Amino acid sequence: MIAVTKRYGFPAAHVLASRELSPEENEAIFGPCANPNGHGHNYGVEVTVTGPIDPDSGQVVPEATLDEIYQAAVAEPFSHRLLNDLEDFATRVPTAENIAVAIHGRLASAVRRSTRARLLRVRIVETPRNSCVVGEVK
Amino acid sequence: MIAVTKRYGFPAAHVLASRELSPEENEAIFGPCANPNGHGHNYGVEVTVTGPIDPDSGQVVPEATLDEIYQAAVAEPFSHRLLNDLEDFATRVPTAENIAVAIHGRLASAVRRSTRARLLRVRIVETPRNSCVVGEVK
Amino acid sequence: MIAVTKRYGFPAAHVLASRELSPEENEAIFGPCANPNGHGHNYGVEVTVTGPIDPDSGQVVPEATLDEIYQAAVAEPFSHRLLNDLEDFATRVPTAENIAVAIHGRLASAVRRSTRARLLRVRIVETPRNSCVVGEVK
Amino acid sequence: MIAVTKRYGFPAAHVLASRELSPEENEAIFGPCANPNGHGHNYGVEVTVTGPIDPDSGQVVPEATLDEIYQAAVAEPFSHRLLNDLEDFATRVPTAENIAVAIHGRLASAVRRSTRARLLRVRIVETPRNSCVVGEVK
Amino acid sequence: MIAVTKRYGFPAAHVLASRELSPEENEAIFGPCANPNGHGHNYGVEVTVTGPIDPDSGQVVPEATLDEIYQAAVAEPFSHRLLNDLEDFATRVPTAENIAVAIHGRLASAVRRSTRARLLRVRIVETPRNSCVVGEVK
Amino acid sequence: MIAVTKRYGFPAAHVLASRELSPEENEAIFGPCANPNGHGHNYGVEVTVTGPIDPDSGQVVPEATLDEIYQAAVAEPFSHRLLNDLEDFATRVPTAENIAVAIHGRLASAVRRSTRARLLRVRIVETPRNSCVVGEVK
Repeated sequence: MIAVTKRYGFPAAHVLASRELSPEENEAIFGPCANPNGHGHNYGVEVTVTGPIDPDSGQVVPEATLDEIYQAAVAEPFSHRLLNDLEDFATRVPTAENIAVAIHGRLASAVRRSTRARLLRVRIVETPRNSCVVGEVK
Repeated sequence: MIAVTKRYGFPAAHVLASRELSPEENEAIFGPCANPNGHGHNYGVEVTVTGPIDPDSGQVVPEATLDEIYQAAVAEPFSHRLLNDLEDFATRVPTAENIAVAIHGRLASAVRRSTRARLLRVRIVETPRNSCVVGEVK
Repeated sequence: MIAVTKRYGFPAAHVLASRELSPEENEAIFGPCANPNGHGHNYGVEVTVTGPIDPDSGQVVPEATLDEIYQAAVAEPFSHRLLNDLEDFATRVPTAENIAVAIHGRLASAVRRSTRARLLRVRIVETPRNSCVVGEVK
Repeated sequence: MIAVTKRYGFPAAHVLASRELSPEENEAIFGPCANPNGHGHNYGVEVTVTGPIDPDSGQVVPEATLDEIYQAAVAEPFSHRLLNDLEDFATRVPTAENIAVAIHGRLASAVRRSTRARLLRVRIVETPRNSCVVGEVK
Repeated sequence: MIAVTKRYGFPAAHVLASRELSPEENEAIFGPCANPNGHGHNYGVEVTVTGPIDPDSGQVVPEATLDEIYQAAVAEPFSHRLLNDLEDFATRVPTAENIAVAIHGRLASAVRRSTRARLLRVRIVETPRNSCVVGEVK
Repeated sequence: MIAVTKRYGFPAAHVLASRELSPEENEAIFGPCANPNGHGHNYGVEVTVTGPIDPDSGQVVPEATLDEIYQAAVAEPFSHRLLNDLEDFATRVPTAENIAVAIHGRLASAVRRSTRARLLRVRIVETPRNSCVVGEVK
């Protein structure tokens, strides 16, 4: 089996606080990350796809195609944004976990539509110390 | 499926030599690593857990909980130590493999007791050139 | 000559926009970084001090002292914050350059007060692709 | 389950162009990578093996054995070479995908012959932004 | 003093061999790097400029300006090329040292023409193990 | 001016404790690093030399020469050792600072004897968070 990974990234801000909880409850769960004016990260996004190698190009997907998919599905909506402003996070806190789920959903359908490969997994690297993978990770 | 990884680390010394072998045999197997006064590494420890995302916190495990588990189960006994002094290595040489097995064992039960997630795997990064994973790695 | 560097870091959000300029002017200068709801980064902070090696400790400054200085002078006010909220940026845009100048100013006096070393330089790493140094850099 | 990874690497040049296609077609597929005089990379090679821990050595494979296998099967033929000159790429373009397939094939048989472990996967890191894994990656 | 560094990079091939020396002499000096069909690297290019902070933008140079300078002066001529083909290396071997000198020369005049800053230094990172700086490095 | 840096490294153990102080005093200064059985690190060693570019080789120093100097002056005595066993640390605690001073001293004379370059500085990277430079660092 073969899997190809490309690493992208974007800077963004977020507030870790649930709209359904009081400031005190949010502070208790999220600590300083609940600061209502936000803080931010350089998010790394590792996109892994799998599929047959095209005999002409020797590639699983054309690099330019994957770049365009990422640009439209992730960079455009997420880069240089306060993530809480996105509809993806209307009812979910923009933690690394929920960001990974949202980006995996957006990329999976785009990869299916535009390539002969399929999305295997998405890794979100929030800081050098914590990351989150959604997909086939076992 | 979703998996969350946090990276920790500790500095420690070890001697790669079996108490059941002669100095010459140890030297033959372990080369300069058998030096009886020890040498050491900055060990990286990547802890990966999996489980459902808690809808309130948007997290698989509270970060503070995982930090406390690591602190008690790994940092406390392993950091700034000669690993051969630990009971974990009374009958096993403290190679990256055996360190990974020992830490996986200590963390797996602690994660089970204290969270609703389960430990998926532990990676020990001994040097930038070699590492070892124990758990579901396939 | 001897210089010791410790690497710290904090996540924060910022808006690159001058209060004296119109939204259009800010957009022209700062592009997507002018988004008024902010975006963010994992800021790396490398603190370099110089001074004689203390013969007892073999160190230029006690590590714990430098950690405490950083904690009070930088982590406390900057971490998990929207940088535009800080007084340091009341009249200056929180670019990497101005963040470096502000942190250098805060650290230089604290290092002078609390140690026998002096601050040589401060490097702010905003992304893996851009950084800024203030101090003696030549 | 336990898996051990060692990271190696080599510098090499390649031309991304199929001998069966015209210059225009190659340019359309591969862009600047089709430049007929070549360009190059520092290729990272991560070799992951799995197997039982030897009770004497505490290791899955002796490090020196894996180093020798890599030296003979990969470094010798690939390092400081124009990859298109190798027989492995007589009919296949030396993309990261095809390099990974070729190296996986060479290493798998060598690991089987010389150790009690088996090759689990090979990762080729072509640039900090793209990599490719062949083996059991799911 | 303030200095701003941006990290760029390009993949390229080179042959380390002097046209004035015999194959045997080149092999004696450069070893496997003298392979006449070339090998290659991912070259990192760190560009450091210094100058006053513009009070409106809070920047030493507009990022877009530095990107354009790099694109025209370095990426365009060097990226995806066999460096020996460039006029810069008509009489000089394209070692990291000579690449750094060539790129420093090209960038210094472009920075002077297009910005109010000046080029302080250029670092070429040829592999994770060796790099070269030209400029004011003391 | 031109400076060339090569990165080397070695694993070693050390005990941060002065023979002239009591265990309590050492514990007060060095905390867990005073553990008398030692702990360890992967020490990175960045060696920077400066000098004219040799017109034939295009290099400041032949890479093989610098490698041999490092091997004899540093790897041989320091690698896989308990640093407190070395004469360099008979009366000095093996902190990053004192290790840097010792290695700088050993390399400076060897570089002077064996090359036309001179040693500009030595950086010791003890952990990803702390390092120390000796030489011309301003």
